[in-house]
Amino acid sequence: MAYELYYWDGLQGRGEFVRLALEEAQAPYVDVARGEKKDGLGIGAMMGELEGDEPYPPYAPPFLKDGDLIVPQTANILFYLGPKLKLAPRDERLRIVANGLQLTIADLVTEAHDTHHPIASGLYYEDQKDAAKARSADFIAHRIPKFMSYFERVLAQNPDGPRHMVGNALTYVDLSMFQIVEGLRYAFPKATKHFADHYPHVIALRDAVAKRPNIAAYLDSERRLPFNETGIFRHYPELDRAMR
Amino acid sequence: MAYELYYWDGLQGRGEFVRLALEEAQAPYVDVARGEKKDGLGIGAMMGELEGDEPYPPYAPPFLKDGDLIVPQTANILFYLGPKLKLAPRDERLRIVANGLQLTIADLVTEAHDTHHPIASGLYYEDQKDAAKARSADFIAHRIPKFMSYFERVLAQNPDGPRHMVGNALTYVDLSMFQIVEGLRYAFPKATKHFADHYPHVIALRDAVAKRPNIAAYLDSERRLPFNETGIFRHYPELDRAMR
Repeated sequence: MAYELYYWDGLQGRGEFVRLALEEAQAPYVDVARGEKKDGLGIGAMMGELEGDEPYPPYAPPFLKDGDLIVPQTANILFYLGPKLKLAPRDERLRIVANGLQLTIADLVTEAHDTHHPIASGLYYEDQKDAAKARSADFIAHRIPKFMSYFERVLAQNPDGPRHMVGNALTYVDLSMFQIVEGLRYAFPKATKHFADHYPHVIALRDAVAKRPNIAAYLDSERRLPFNETGIFRHYPELDRAMR
Repeated sequence: MAYELYYWDGLQGRGEFVRLALEEAQAPYVDVARGEKKDGLGIGAMMGELEGDEPYPPYAPPFLKDGDLIVPQTANILFYLGPKLKLAPRDERLRIVANGLQLTIADLVTEAHDTHHPIASGLYYEDQKDAAKARSADFIAHRIPKFMSYFERVLAQNPDGPRHMVGNALTYVDLSMFQIVEGLRYAFPKATKHFADHYPHVIALRDAVAKRPNIAAYLDSERRLPFNETGIFRHYPELDRAMR
């Protein structure tokens, strides 16, 4: 049976980390909210799950349904899917390592979101632009370098070599690394201009993921939405600046 | 061998969610950064682990060492420890449910932190007080009610009854629920004044956790640091207001 992925239509957002794993593994899945109402899909189907009275409802998209099991939270979905899609380490201990790395990626994603919404996710960007400029300046000066140099160090210190974040084979963590590099480059082209010089292992990993046949085909398809200003990574030129 | 917990000294912070689990289970553990330098402990020992060149270094505290395995990220530590401490559901599927709930708790914790540091964690509160007031007003008006009514709903919809977040027995998720209620009440006494009326199952769970002998003994001990203005949950009266 196909996995059911529930995420907002019209943006990559956090759902994209799950899509990349499903696409790499060529796993059958339905992107529920993007479907048609006549097929029992669409945004209404997603809201029904969110507001339902079933046990253990999800707090927010993305969530996955596998049969009658609802799996909420991006990192949790990937932890759950990883072994099934052969995108997790075989070693149980390295699965815990992978989950820790994915949660650090999730922290970066939250901070990237908050660059344009530092006050309230329910308010318009325009109504919090001054705070957004201040938060973005700090994000570029301090947070991007801290996260990226950490990821570079994880690759450099991987005992199996710097081609993967965990172990000696592709995992969902590698796919998520691709996505954060893409997102940061989209949102902050000036700040990320010299990424390849500063974080060579990270960029080599990004390039290797982009070349994988299933990922390349996905990126070329209509299923891959373009980045835009409704997602996590938004390009507002006034928030971008060269990294010192 | 005792677990080694690494977290900043002087505050409860995210380390507290792990401590509550270790204390409830009466598991042997060393709170490394709170120890003495002469015993090979203290902040220097923690910084050594953070800056070391071993495989898979942690990004930030808290992290746990179990033998030579480093487990970073609060929710990941609890997911790892849960079965060993008999504080996780036996059913593998419910362990995934528990992890999803813990990650939603983690999201609330991050948002609680950002009420006093909406612009930059590296700047003083005093230098971002106006933004903090705006973010706190939104947190009280929209975010606390959204999170808390969700948790109330999870308890009400638990097929095993509203005494636990997952299944029919105590898990680390219940302990974490205690901690977020305590933290929110400390930081926002006005906003949380009517919590018991609005979220009766959540408060009943909080009260039941507080009465557990191992938790009560821990809360009464010197190991439980008081809440203060260096942690996640900080009481700045100017950020608090009654919930409408």
